[in-house]
Amino acid sequence: MININTARLDRFIVESRKLYERWLGELVEIPTVSADPAYQDDILKGAALAASYLTEMGARAEIVKTEGYPLVLGHFDAQANAPTIAIYNHLDVQPASPSRWLHPPFKFTTTLDGHYLGRGTTDDKGPALAALFAARFAHEEGIPINIKFIWEMEEEIGSPHFEAAIRSKSADLHPDSILVSDTIWISRDKPAITYGLRGLMAATMTLTTAERDAHSGLVGGAARNPLAELCQVISQCLDPLTGRVKISGFYDKVRKPTPQELKEFESLQFNVSEFKKANGLRSLRMEGAGQILLATWCEPTFEVHGLVGGYIGSGVMTIVPHKAEAKISTRLVPDQEPVEIFELLKDHVAKINPDVVVELESTLAPYLTEFSGPYAQAAREAVSLGFGLKPVFIRGGGSIGSVVSMQSLWPVPIVLLGLSLPEHGYHAPNEYFDWPQASGGIRSIAHYLSRISQL
Amino acid sequence: MININTARLDRFIVESRKLYERWLGELVEIPTVSADPAYQDDILKGAALAASYLTEMGARAEIVKTEGYPLVLGHFDAQANAPTIAIYNHLDVQPASPSRWLHPPFKFTTTLDGHYLGRGTTDDKGPALAALFAARFAHEEGIPINIKFIWEMEEEIGSPHFEAAIRSKSADLHPDSILVSDTIWISRDKPAITYGLRGLMAATMTLTTAERDAHSGLVGGAARNPLAELCQVISQCLDPLTGRVKISGFYDKVRKPTPQELKEFESLQFNVSEFKKANGLRSLRMEGAGQILLATWCEPTFEVHGLVGGYIGSGVMTIVPHKAEAKISTRLVPDQEPVEIFELLKDHVAKINPDVVVELESTLAPYLTEFSGPYAQAAREAVSLGFGLKPVFIRGGGSIGSVVSMQSLWPVPIVLLGLSLPEHGYHAPNEYFDWPQASGGIRSIAHYLSRISQL
Repeated sequence: MININTARLDRFIVESRKLYERWLGELVEIPTVSADPAYQDDILKGAALAASYLTEMGARAEIVKTEGYPLVLGHFDAQANAPTIAIYNHLDVQPASPSRWLHPPFKFTTTLDGHYLGRGTTDDKGPALAALFAARFAHEEGIPINIKFIWEMEEEIGSPHFEAAIRSKSADLHPDSILVSDTIWISRDKPAITYGLRGLMAATMTLTTAERDAHSGLVGGAARNPLAELCQVISQCLDPLTGRVKISGFYDKVRKPTPQELKEFESLQFNVSEFKKANGLRSLRMEGAGQILLATWCEPTFEVHGLVGGYIGSGVMTIVPHKAEAKISTRLVPDQEPVEIFELLKDHVAKINPDVVVELESTLAPYLTEFSGPYAQAAREAVSLGFGLKPVFIRGGGSIGSVVSMQSLWPVPIVLLGLSLPEHGYHAPNEYFDWPQASGGIRSIAHYLSRISQL
Repeated sequence: MININTARLDRFIVESRKLYERWLGELVEIPTVSADPAYQDDILKGAALAASYLTEMGARAEIVKTEGYPLVLGHFDAQANAPTIAIYNHLDVQPASPSRWLHPPFKFTTTLDGHYLGRGTTDDKGPALAALFAARFAHEEGIPINIKFIWEMEEEIGSPHFEAAIRSKSADLHPDSILVSDTIWISRDKPAITYGLRGLMAATMTLTTAERDAHSGLVGGAARNPLAELCQVISQCLDPLTGRVKISGFYDKVRKPTPQELKEFESLQFNVSEFKKANGLRSLRMEGAGQILLATWCEPTFEVHGLVGGYIGSGVMTIVPHKAEAKISTRLVPDQEPVEIFELLKDHVAKINPDVVVELESTLAPYLTEFSGPYAQAAREAVSLGFGLKPVFIRGGGSIGSVVSMQSLWPVPIVLLGLSLPEHGYHAPNEYFDWPQASGGIRSIAHYLSRISQL
C-alpha cells in the first residue's frame, strides 16, 4: 500500500491556499445560474474558466457539448493498468436574490477568519476545487490512478442532459469507482458520508380564470379567484401541520428504512437545536431527533415554493387576480417513481379542480446504496486522516440527479464524500464555504485516491 | 325653474374639448399613486396642478393639509341664500405595473376614436374634470348654487384622513346635497345611479417560520412551510368554488335586499356575457344574471389578492420559504361592521393556526341610501338630458370611503352619478376614458346643478 507523504501533502496544502482562493473567487464571480436563461453566457464563461484550471493543473481538459449546457471533463492519466476514478462536481449555482444577502451574492469575499462568501462557494465550486487540488497532488506524487473529472453545469436544474453526455463519452470515462463531493456533514465535528439521496418531482400548477386582473369591488363574489382556488388545491394535497401528503397512492411504494439504519440514526446523536440554528428554523413540524431524520431522509414531502399571481407590492391592492401559478415539488424516497408520482398528482388535482393545469418541471429518481465495502472503508479512513474526525454514514434529504445517472450507466461503487456544513447555507442567502473544510477536503481526497489506487 | 340654454351648453362643450383633453393629459401624466410612498412628490404636484385648474376656472382654490396627503377644495360662490352642493372626486390612482399595459400607464394617449388611455383616466380624473367643466358652465350662466369641489388624494388607500379633513372645514363646506362621480354604468346604453356601496376590510396574514429560506432537500419534511400553512388557512376562510365565506359569524349581520330591490335588479336585464367581456372574465362562480348581481352588490366576499414569499421566478426553485404573507380583503354589505369582521377573522385564524399574525390594513363601512326623492329625480332627468338615455338605480360592489364619511358628517342627500363604463377598466391595466362619456357627463351635471338649484 502506498502511503502518502503527509509532510509533502501538508506543505502542498499550505502553498496552494492563495491559488485556491484566487480560483474560487474567479469562479464565484461568474454567476453560473442554470435556472435562469439570462445567465447563459456566464455558464459558458464558467465552463471555459474551469477547463483552463484543469489544463493549468496538468490535466487534459475537454468541453463536451450537450443539448443544454456543456460538461467539462478533465483527465489526469496514470499508467494504462491503473484503476480509474471519476470525480463528479457541478459548477452551476442556485439563483440568488441580492436583497436577501448581506453582501452581493456574486462578489467573492474572504473574511478574516477564512470564510469565503458568495453564491456557489459551498455548492459546489469550493468542493470541486478542493478535489482538483487533491488530484493534482496525487498526480504529482505518481499515485497510480487515472482521474476523470466530470464537472456539470446543469445540476441545479435536475441534470436534464447529463446522462446523454456521459453516455456519449462512456468509453473514455468508464470508471472503476466514482467520487461525488456535493453533500453535507451532520455538523463541523461530525463528518458524514452519504449513501442515500431523495428523488424529486417538481411541477407547476396553473389556473387562469380571466384575461386580466379585475377590480374586486366590481366583480368580487361572482369572479373566480385563481389564487384562492390554488390554495384549496394545495391544502388538499398536503396537511402542512404534519407534512402528511394527501395525494392518493402517494405513499404506496415508500420503502421503510431497515432496523440497522434506524440503529445507525440513533447513534448519530443528532442535535436538533443545531439543526434548527444552522438552517435558521424557528420551529419544526416535530421535535424528536429520530423523527426529524426520518422526515428529512426517509420520507417523501410535498413543498410549495411560491405562488405567482395577483399583487405583492406594499399594502393591499384589491384586485381579483386573473391567473395564478403554484410552484411545487415532492422529494421522493425509494421505491417511489417520479413520473408515477406526477401522474398521481395530476389525477388528484383533476378531481379537486379540473381547470388547474399541472405541468411536470423535472424529475430525479431516489438513490440508495450500501454503506459497507472497501470503498466505504477507504472513505472512512481518508476522512479520519483528513480532518482528524471519524465520519458517520448517513442518508441525505436532497437529490443529485447525476448520481442516479452515473449509477445506472456505470454499476460501480459511488462514494459521496461531502465537504459542506449545514451552516454554509446550501441554496440559502449568504452561502459560504471555508478554508478548514477546503483544506481538510484536499487532504482527505488525496488520502482517498491513494487508498483506492490499490483496490 | 331655470332651464339651461342647451345651445350654449352644447357650444360650451364643443369649445371645451381641447382644454379638457390637455388638462386630463397633464393630470394623468403625474403618477398620483397613493398606495406607494415613492410617489409622494407626484401626489403633491398633482394637488397643486388641480388647484391651478380650479383657479383658472374662476373658483377659489385651497389646499388643505392633513396627516397624510392633502385635500384640494374649490369654491364657486353664488349668492348667499343659494343652496350649496359639494362635488366629490379623487385624484389619486391605483398602482400600475407597466408590463401588463399595452402602452405606458402614465403616458396620456388620445386615440382617433376619442379614447383617453392612461392610469386614472376613468378612475377618477376624467369624471373629476367633467364635473369641473360643468360647474364652470353653471357658474358662468349664473345658476344660483354654491359649488364646493372636494378632491381627495387618498381614495385608493381607503381615505384614512378624509373625515378629519372635511370635519375641520365643515363650517365652510357644509352642503345641502352631495354629488359623487366615481361609479360605473351597467353598460354604454344603460346609465346607472348608484344608491349602495359595499364596505371593505383589508388585512394581511403573515407567518414566519424561519430566519431565511432553506433547501427543501436538507430540511424538507421537518421544516414548516409557511406558504402551505397560509394556503390551509385561506381554504378554511373561503370555499373558492362557491365564494361562501367560512369565517364563523361572518354572515350574521348581512341585511337581505328588499323585494323591491330584487324586482329592480330583474328589470335591469343585466347582460352576463357583456359583464364577462368587459371585465375579461372567462368563467364565473355562477351564471345567472340575478345571482351575479346579488353576489357583486348585496353579498360580502373574501378575496385573496396576493401571496408573498418563496420563489416566483422562472422554473421551480426548491426552497422552503421562511415567511409568507397573504394579502386579503372582504367586501362587506349592510349591516356588517368592518372592525367586527376583522375580529371574527382574527379569532377564526387563531383557531386554525395561532402562529399567523393577522393585521388590519383598512376598513370602510358599507353604504346604502334611498333611491327616490327630488335629488334622485333631478339626477334621473339630468342623465336623460345629458346622454339621451334613461338611467337605472343600482347598488355597486365597490367601496368609496369618502361617501361613508360625508354621509356621517353631513346627513344630506348624496347622489352617485358616475360616468365610467365597465370596459374602461377600473383598477385594471389599460384603463381608459372617452369623450362621449366626458361630454355627456358635463352636459348631465350642468343640468343637474340647474335642477337642484331650485330645490
